[in-house]
Amino acid sequence: MYRAPVEEIAFTLKHVAGLEEALEAGLFGDLTSDLVDAVLGEAGRFASEEIAPLARVGDEHGALLKDGKVATPPGWKELYRRWVEAGWNALSGPEAYGGQALPTQLAMATQEMWNSAAMAFGLGPMLTMGAIEALDKHATEDLKAKYLARLVSGEWMGTMNLTEPQAGSDVGALRTRAEPAGDGTYRLFGQKIFITYGEQDFSDNIVHLVLARLPDAPAGTRGISLFLVPKFLVNDDGSLGRRNDVFCSGLERKLGIHGSPTCTMIYGDGFAGAEPGAIGWLIGEENKGLACMFTMMNNARLAVGIQGMALAEAATQKALAYANERRQGKAADHAGGGMAAIVHHPDVQRNLLTMKALTQMARGICYACAFALDMGRVVRGGEAGYWRERANLLTPLAKAFSTDVGVEVASLGVQVHGGMGFIEETGAAALYRDARIAPIYEGTNGIQAIDLVTRKLPLGNGEVVHAYLDELVAIAAAARTAEIAELGEAADLLDRALEDVSEATRFLQDRFAAGDQQVLLAGATPYLRLLSLTAGCAYLARAAVADRSEARAALCRFAAENLLGEVAALKQRVIAGAGSLAAAARALIAE
Amino acid sequence: MYRAPVEEIAFTLKHVAGLEEALEAGLFGDLTSDLVDAVLGEAGRFASEEIAPLARVGDEHGALLKDGKVATPPGWKELYRRWVEAGWNALSGPEAYGGQALPTQLAMATQEMWNSAAMAFGLGPMLTMGAIEALDKHATEDLKAKYLARLVSGEWMGTMNLTEPQAGSDVGALRTRAEPAGDGTYRLFGQKIFITYGEQDFSDNIVHLVLARLPDAPAGTRGISLFLVPKFLVNDDGSLGRRNDVFCSGLERKLGIHGSPTCTMIYGDGFAGAEPGAIGWLIGEENKGLACMFTMMNNARLAVGIQGMALAEAATQKALAYANERRQGKAADHAGGGMAAIVHHPDVQRNLLTMKALTQMARGICYACAFALDMGRVVRGGEAGYWRERANLLTPLAKAFSTDVGVEVASLGVQVHGGMGFIEETGAAALYRDARIAPIYEGTNGIQAIDLVTRKLPLGNGEVVHAYLDELVAIAAAARTAEIAELGEAADLLDRALEDVSEATRFLQDRFAAGDQQVLLAGATPYLRLLSLTAGCAYLARAAVADRSEARAALCRFAAENLLGEVAALKQRVIAGAGSLAAAARALIAE
Repeated sequence: MYRAPVEEIAFTLKHVAGLEEALEAGLFGDLTSDLVDAVLGEAGRFASEEIAPLARVGDEHGALLKDGKVATPPGWKELYRRWVEAGWNALSGPEAYGGQALPTQLAMATQEMWNSAAMAFGLGPMLTMGAIEALDKHATEDLKAKYLARLVSGEWMGTMNLTEPQAGSDVGALRTRAEPAGDGTYRLFGQKIFITYGEQDFSDNIVHLVLARLPDAPAGTRGISLFLVPKFLVNDDGSLGRRNDVFCSGLERKLGIHGSPTCTMIYGDGFAGAEPGAIGWLIGEENKGLACMFTMMNNARLAVGIQGMALAEAATQKALAYANERRQGKAADHAGGGMAAIVHHPDVQRNLLTMKALTQMARGICYACAFALDMGRVVRGGEAGYWRERANLLTPLAKAFSTDVGVEVASLGVQVHGGMGFIEETGAAALYRDARIAPIYEGTNGIQAIDLVTRKLPLGNGEVVHAYLDELVAIAAAARTAEIAELGEAADLLDRALEDVSEATRFLQDRFAAGDQQVLLAGATPYLRLLSLTAGCAYLARAAVADRSEARAALCRFAAENLLGEVAALKQRVIAGAGSLAAAARALIAE
Repeated sequence: MYRAPVEEIAFTLKHVAGLEEALEAGLFGDLTSDLVDAVLGEAGRFASEEIAPLARVGDEHGALLKDGKVATPPGWKELYRRWVEAGWNALSGPEAYGGQALPTQLAMATQEMWNSAAMAFGLGPMLTMGAIEALDKHATEDLKAKYLARLVSGEWMGTMNLTEPQAGSDVGALRTRAEPAGDGTYRLFGQKIFITYGEQDFSDNIVHLVLARLPDAPAGTRGISLFLVPKFLVNDDGSLGRRNDVFCSGLERKLGIHGSPTCTMIYGDGFAGAEPGAIGWLIGEENKGLACMFTMMNNARLAVGIQGMALAEAATQKALAYANERRQGKAADHAGGGMAAIVHHPDVQRNLLTMKALTQMARGICYACAFALDMGRVVRGGEAGYWRERANLLTPLAKAFSTDVGVEVASLGVQVHGGMGFIEETGAAALYRDARIAPIYEGTNGIQAIDLVTRKLPLGNGEVVHAYLDELVAIAAAARTAEIAELGEAADLLDRALEDVSEATRFLQDRFAAGDQQVLLAGATPYLRLLSLTAGCAYLARAAVADRSEARAALCRFAAENLLGEVAALKQRVIAGAGSLAAAARALIAE
């Protein structure tokens, strides 16, 4: 059973991401290192003791739709109520609406724990958080007054409605219509798919944020507006009014996250009995809906990265526990006559260390990104821009690398369990199933990589990434001067990887300047992995230097010697892979 | 829906594995190239038209246990009957018992197709084939006369009973007892788990091959004997007698291959009503049971490798079809104003080409191994030993690399489908689930790697692997002299990879000579992948040279430039990875 790694998370936030120094500089006001520990400790207790025990029933029972109503798994409704009552939903919400306004770092750290414990449960609040952010930044005061406090408390939940059958990655292709009613409201008509927690029994009301087109909107992404569409209309006194014309017409049968209802939502079919059309209110400006969504997109992408890392953590814990329990065969380093626990076998150790290293590498990247997001808000002047751009740079890494790691680590976790890994009762298989969605939703990992090379590398005339690389170089230098014997050649290997990263980065920036789109697109995914592996390994080094523990240094050395070698190959793929890709791809295209 | 790639399989067998030349040399008697095509064509038709349409019902319905009886998925019993009536089970069986005695290559090629179409279905006959082989080689003439013909025809099916709760990878720990009854028969008592098709409704009788211990047997693997235990005893006239004391007490709830019943089997609990004890007959000598199992192990391991590759093929086909259908976004190389099929996006192309290349690389290795197995039987004198050792060398590559590829490619297949990949109805997720068992069963991939470095590299004083590497070097040379422009630098890249393979091989052979077990065990898995990637890429080159097609050359170049780069990193892991592994592993072990 999952136990929240509270100390590891706190350590990563404080000493790898940089929170400790920022706290000491007073950048986060009253927040102290002890308070961080206290919050994480309480969250860890809730995740381990309250959520984790209900993960399996969620997977086995799933969410069910009957007569337009969704029943979440047994016990989950009460779990959500306890979770809200403990105040967890309000952790990072705006103070004006009852939130605690704690830094994103803490929101993400608690999300790690909810998702490790049960990703299908943690997913719902993640979307509410996105809705809060979008409304807080873009909604009118009237709408905020009506909706925000109850979203912040968790009394109501929020959803995000983007995807339509013909509009997935290409959101510009969406067709849902929003017609002005003449009274400042709109009537929405259309179908949305893959809507997470689109219908549920956790909350009395559901606040849908919906992308739709006005009648005269231009085609493509410039003609998309954002609307608030509540499940129940809200009277001026705050009581619930009549049912709005938005309904769940079906749930998807999915590979994983069974406890999370994935809904097809129908807007404006007249099911509510009144005049057809779901009543909605505009958020932000007309035709600027995508920009409104983008303000929350960074957080949502980071949050999905956190999910990937959270599943990797859960899979690593499970595999490690099993490997220390299960006895098979003899092992050289195991004294005694009987069978050794399989953790003594080098091949099993290699799997476990790979899992552990990748998880911590992803954690370092995710929390460095969260730290940058917070710094962008708390520091003043030009430095704020520096941190905002850092967050922009790290977001695709956090999302794509961590979710790939989630899949890889969950797969290794099944392998460590041997035959038992394939049996559902161990839970290793459930993690392997759940993990698979994270590289897909909130922008596929391919789209993250394209975002990285076409939008993030050019940031600040290319200086944003170079400033980041300089920071990584400094970490490698610090690792060398720390003279920690257990680091072995890690600093040298890191230096070498950083040279490859620099070369690949300059190459792509040159291609960008030359407008060579094909090479950028072909090299995007290898480049994202190359930068992430190197950054992740640098964070392992920073952790080893920070506390000079033998175990951290040994893990960093393991990663440098066993995982960083891929970087040179990735550089080659970035620089020389596009030609062969284009040539070979011709055979793929059906006539 | 799956379409058997009959021409690709025939091409790989004939021009990559080497069958064409052997046929021309008359090594396979009456077998002609046309007959190979005819057999594969018919098998392809059966797989595509009869098996594939029933894959989904197998996954969704699964096998069910009720009152000790197993019901396979709707339609599967009739499917099995049609498959047997078409003679497919008898393809490679011994002629003396009604088999067609066709080469293993054809048996494996047809298994590829059955497993691509529905792995859970293909798995049953795979085990029958293993039972036939074990009985043909080790059983008495009486037992053969009673059982073999009906196993060869497929009227009865066979099973393999090795695993017990405490004895998985460490088969020597098994406890099932076999007591001599004094009349030449034995009574078996014990529990076996994970028994594939241990109970089913396909066949009237089931022939269980069971590993058990005699009362006075030495501990460990030297005290294991093999027994034949039929579900129904067989009278001297061939009619079925009374029910034997072996029963299925439960089915596992598994991640994938739901149509295949995975049974817990209870021997000797008295459920049959008569005196407790399952009646069994000794196969081979007392305490030599493991050796008997090993004679069929090579084939079974190759067959599981075929499964991994077969799933990769199925996943590639599915993803490619989807990518040509699904339209999202604009693409540079796609004319016209609307959205382009996603196959036009370079990032999608990279995924699809990686899938295609890995699948063909695994296919090359698997059929090269099958070819070597056949050559070991048909050639005379010392050359037979040469081929047998080649097969021994390639077996762990075929098993482990191909099954890892199965998981990787199935995962990429889900990714190419985007959100639809996570929805069960597309079938991409089912392949991802099914694929996950193949790296585990029939010896985990870790065990395959250990077998490779501790038993196969030392074969023939190390000469077996070097002879193989020489062959790969010759392939690279042929690729260079072929002067195929589309190969680009592939020959050079292959040469460089082969140098790394040589260096890693010599390093491990030296460590073997020095008795440095820890380094061998730590480097085993990276070495297996390094050798497999290089061999696989060499087979792509051989294919390109053989038919000088632009598409094959471009695929080889893609693999050389995009997948072979990993080899240098793997070499480093083999040579320098053990120290950091041992150091970091200390933190894994619970006190």
